[in-house]
Amino acid sequence: MSGEAPIILYTAPTPNGHKVSVFLEELKLAYGLQYDVQSIDIRTNTQKEPWFIKLNPNGRIPTIVDRSRNNFNVFESAAINLYLWQHYDKDNKFGFDSKTEADDYSEMIQWIFFAHGGVGPMQGQSNHFNKYAPEQIPYAKKRYLEETKRLYGVIEIRLQDRDWLAGPGRGRYSIADLNVIPWIRFHKIAGIETLDEWPRLKAWVEAAEARPGFQAGIKV
Amino acid sequence: MSGEAPIILYTAPTPNGHKVSVFLEELKLAYGLQYDVQSIDIRTNTQKEPWFIKLNPNGRIPTIVDRSRNNFNVFESAAINLYLWQHYDKDNKFGFDSKTEADDYSEMIQWIFFAHGGVGPMQGQSNHFNKYAPEQIPYAKKRYLEETKRLYGVIEIRLQDRDWLAGPGRGRYSIADLNVIPWIRFHKIAGIETLDEWPRLKAWVEAAEARPGFQAGIKV
Repeated sequence: MSGEAPIILYTAPTPNGHKVSVFLEELKLAYGLQYDVQSIDIRTNTQKEPWFIKLNPNGRIPTIVDRSRNNFNVFESAAINLYLWQHYDKDNKFGFDSKTEADDYSEMIQWIFFAHGGVGPMQGQSNHFNKYAPEQIPYAKKRYLEETKRLYGVIEIRLQDRDWLAGPGRGRYSIADLNVIPWIRFHKIAGIETLDEWPRLKAWVEAAEARPGFQAGIKV
Repeated sequence: MSGEAPIILYTAPTPNGHKVSVFLEELKLAYGLQYDVQSIDIRTNTQKEPWFIKLNPNGRIPTIVDRSRNNFNVFESAAINLYLWQHYDKDNKFGFDSKTEADDYSEMIQWIFFAHGGVGPMQGQSNHFNKYAPEQIPYAKKRYLEETKRLYGVIEIRLQDRDWLAGPGRGRYSIADLNVIPWIRFHKIAGIETLDEWPRLKAWVEAAEARPGFQAGIKV
């Protein structure tokens, strides 16, 4: 089926969706990688329908199918980005080689897990209790707001003498950064009005947002 | 400094700590890998002291230092296990080669992220509102209990026709399994009295618990 885009992205305009659409746009600019988008309406729980559960047993977006590799499907945003990086970032523009740059690679992986187990789920809970929960629960609201701020503070310290989370010297833009910045951009939903408290983190978010690939990705 | 163990593990007897101590014990049995344990008293916040923050900016256990690789330090339980796997599992007994078994490797990574962003943080919140929160908050208690059960249900479906989360055929015990079973073992703290609702998940937990390495790891 020549002419078909290799990747199908099932997504919605959420931070987790943007993590993958940003990387796909970066890969499109860097290598011309094409992909199709299938919008999933998470308000009507399309992602819980049986056809989707076959692609992602967890019933969440984003999920990809790779037509060029036997329709292999991948779920979990960070696992998708590691997959796309391995198979489509041939010149290693967005990551570090696990063999020849083993320590940089490990630091990239460490910050990806920090985001995946910390910023994503905790800011997600802060969003919930700040905006969506049917009752006001001050204890839970405070718990997750404070944890989200603490996690931003950890990143602020990491960026003390560097521009990007991973890489030698001041670091290099990689999937470690694009994996978490889409969350931080949505800080207002979590109840954090400005990023002024974390000036290095704020500058880092802005530096990513200035990239054409990033800009295109958050519009998907 | 001959005779010194290459790895120092900073840990406490929690599910995240056990994820790494189980893998270190598996590597000890398989290859004779030695490691030293430094207990961190999380009740007195040792993990927030400046010397520890230098090792792990997030101030949490587990964390490792690798004496044999220039005292390189690694934080985030799953990132530690991927690091140990890359550097110390030379025969690939606990994972799948990213090049020659690319799809099995990706599935392993997907389930590791599923655990790291789902089971760990959500069951952790269920623990909190079930046992530790200073006030009873029925809404939050229910929210996290139900989400933890839903995630167990996703694993139950995955194990429908397989013994382990990743690998061809019925799968093979890997870091994908040992990355999440230490959480599920502690289900009672989260308010889940038995695993009978998920018979395949229960059998899978028991199969891991029968392994000598696993047994030794959860005693660390």
